[in-house]
Amino acid sequence: MANSDSVNVRVLSLNCWGIRYVSKHTLQRYAMIGDMLCKEEHDVVLLQEVWSEKDYLSLKKKLACSHPHSHHFKSGVIGSGLAIFSKHRIHETFLYRYSLNGYPYMAQHGDWFGGKAVGMAVLKFGSLTANVYVTHLHAEYCRDKDSYLPHRVVQAWELQQFVRHTSVGADVVILGGDLNMHPQDLGNRLLMSYTGLRDSYLESAKFDGCENGMTLIADNPFIDKKELAPFEKGIRIDYILFKGSSKTDVYCDFMSTTKGAVHDHPFPYSDHEALTSVLRLETQTPTETECDGQRASKEQDSAAGKVAELVDIVTEARTEVKVGLHCAERMRYTASRTGVMGLALLFLELAIAAVPWLALGAEQPFPRTSFYLLAALCFAILITTALLYVFYTMELKSLQGAEDQMRLAVGSLQEKLRGFPLAQPHNAHLRPPVGPEPGVFNPEE
Amino acid sequence: MANSDSVNVRVLSLNCWGIRYVSKHTLQRYAMIGDMLCKEEHDVVLLQEVWSEKDYLSLKKKLACSHPHSHHFKSGVIGSGLAIFSKHRIHETFLYRYSLNGYPYMAQHGDWFGGKAVGMAVLKFGSLTANVYVTHLHAEYCRDKDSYLPHRVVQAWELQQFVRHTSVGADVVILGGDLNMHPQDLGNRLLMSYTGLRDSYLESAKFDGCENGMTLIADNPFIDKKELAPFEKGIRIDYILFKGSSKTDVYCDFMSTTKGAVHDHPFPYSDHEALTSVLRLETQTPTETECDGQRASKEQDSAAGKVAELVDIVTEARTEVKVGLHCAERMRYTASRTGVMGLALLFLELAIAAVPWLALGAEQPFPRTSFYLLAALCFAILITTALLYVFYTMELKSLQGAEDQMRLAVGSLQEKLRGFPLAQPHNAHLRPPVGPEPGVFNPEE
Repeated sequence: MANSDSVNVRVLSLNCWGIRYVSKHTLQRYAMIGDMLCKEEHDVVLLQEVWSEKDYLSLKKKLACSHPHSHHFKSGVIGSGLAIFSKHRIHETFLYRYSLNGYPYMAQHGDWFGGKAVGMAVLKFGSLTANVYVTHLHAEYCRDKDSYLPHRVVQAWELQQFVRHTSVGADVVILGGDLNMHPQDLGNRLLMSYTGLRDSYLESAKFDGCENGMTLIADNPFIDKKELAPFEKGIRIDYILFKGSSKTDVYCDFMSTTKGAVHDHPFPYSDHEALTSVLRLETQTPTETECDGQRASKEQDSAAGKVAELVDIVTEARTEVKVGLHCAERMRYTASRTGVMGLALLFLELAIAAVPWLALGAEQPFPRTSFYLLAALCFAILITTALLYVFYTMELKSLQGAEDQMRLAVGSLQEKLRGFPLAQPHNAHLRPPVGPEPGVFNPEE
Repeated sequence: MANSDSVNVRVLSLNCWGIRYVSKHTLQRYAMIGDMLCKEEHDVVLLQEVWSEKDYLSLKKKLACSHPHSHHFKSGVIGSGLAIFSKHRIHETFLYRYSLNGYPYMAQHGDWFGGKAVGMAVLKFGSLTANVYVTHLHAEYCRDKDSYLPHRVVQAWELQQFVRHTSVGADVVILGGDLNMHPQDLGNRLLMSYTGLRDSYLESAKFDGCENGMTLIADNPFIDKKELAPFEKGIRIDYILFKGSSKTDVYCDFMSTTKGAVHDHPFPYSDHEALTSVLRLETQTPTETECDGQRASKEQDSAAGKVAELVDIVTEARTEVKVGLHCAERMRYTASRTGVMGLALLFLELAIAAVPWLALGAEQPFPRTSFYLLAALCFAILITTALLYVFYTMELKSLQGAEDQMRLAVGSLQEKLRGFPLAQPHNAHLRPPVGPEPGVFNPEE
């Protein structure tokens, strides 16, 4: 190869499971993680679930020599949990907060309280500008009946939008994190197809790690094996993704994951495995750009197919968001109906209380305690349902917003498809009729 | 000029003041706005404060012929109030929600309840890709003692980040909206300097409208003149900003504002004036690009000065955010102290109640009503202070996040400044000492 320049970049991604007083052996594990990072000297370290500012600061202190540049992305009440450590100067950071992230009343799942987001950092590897993203999507607690699926699909939608729109000027794009999605899950396909990001595990020339690149493995002592069912050995939900640009080619020469146990230590770094990718960035010489011209033209041949595939994926995502919309509408309706019942109960109680008060002479004993208890119950119902109503309204707005955006995107993609001489026949039915709005889906539907 | 191509684009921006049942003559004004837009046929219409979905839909119906493409940006409980109508297909939209937007308990100001955001739409004007942004920042209720200043500065910071990072691939960038900032206000300088956006009013070859381009004028019957003081005649807080790219030059040929009264109607369109800019987009031919090379080199001469200015502005913004930080910390401390007092009061009350209960024989009358009232007060204090504590924690996190980002940005700008052969002497003191972190500001400060 006649490349003029080549840079190697080592990237690590790890979900640290750093919930103070809840996660097991948090401090010892952070010490182990710090030691490992100090020794390994990765170029870029992308961490998730670093919930505590104190833990971030102690890591920052420990890594002052190996990784002098760092940023902790702040958001929500608890924080986003996202952190980046880098050997190279961080020129800028930017944070995008996802519009949806579970339900506040599902306190046992806790996702809502962490301000889930995607953090971006602009670095320079030599003369190359790299946009590095770190993120953590909503967890999947039950694969068969995943009530958070619409939320995670909207998060994946917003993630791909953010990455795509902010990375135009970058020579290299790297995204690492706990996506909480299996490789073939809808959100993952949406992200990869739309952004063109490639999966380190699939692209790597050499791999050393857990079977099938799994990052949540049954052998990990912090994992409840029952929760992994039906995936006996584990699942792959953490990723390091990358892409180059017209100026830069990126290759993954080597990828590894930790395999649960850590040498000389009684337990692993976290309940997730750490991922390391060695990326080779090759700057293209102008001559090569011409060669790339040929390659690009070849690539364009399959572009129509890709756009058609994208239309299918976005349509699938739109369907999923619509399921979420119906569900949120039903929940809001239930909340409002319960609220009305609470109000009716309150009025009934007041009416009952008014009877002895109006019949001044009557000397019947008034059940004071029951009265107060019932009144308290009514107020509790009213306040709870009012809060739920507001919450579901916000959820509906966000889902509707995402659905609107997806509708526009499908319309635009279909127009693009019509521009190709040989559109894919299996997508012919998706082409919109003549009219201002893309007509496959009725926006009022 | 030897330009190969030229496109004229007419853009309108208007804050519609569409608060149903609160704003005056809302329906009639929307009818007037719809008629005007239908007749004028602007290429792009950027509306703010379209709070009601119903009003948006009725406008959409009315403008189906003149502006077949539209999008209402959804966010928060009430919505973002942002809408775009376009003659050209909207290929994509994307929404960024600001992390800070006033206080929920300032219900009379109401900003917190509207999910303030910046909306982006990707359009095509011929072969040119245009990123069009519409936004509405937090209002300024008292210029002398503006408690929302840190929030608005953070909004301006996030706005410039969003525009800058998402517009790299665009040939043309247009931003319209109610920025709630005077032309020389910190947030405005931050936005304009960082993004390179230019102000239609200042750049326009011809202007027809209110004196000094004012958009909130004393003559408007919906305006309370006292609120404008000390600006007797009015203020300029709505803008249409634009910039081109290496491929496209943008000029503002004409700009106009409405002047309060509307011909044949008893009142104006809104409490704000509508702005219209006629932009001329000129695609540069390759030959010209070379000429531009010379111009670019000339421009680079002043680049160091611009970077130095930017360092000053970001530093000023950082100071303002720090003021907000101290204020939020103080408020959070007050909330927690009040909460502790409420808790102490509750314990005291329980202790007092326990006395007759423990002294079983005593037959003293127990002041039941006062006891319940005091208990209710304690609970109200506890709940309120707990909510405030959570809210101020979120505010602190967002302010700290912005401050961190600004610190990184200043460091990076200073490094850039060191790269220029002739750095501005008045900024020499801002250069960081050798070390991993930009050293002007102590991050722990």
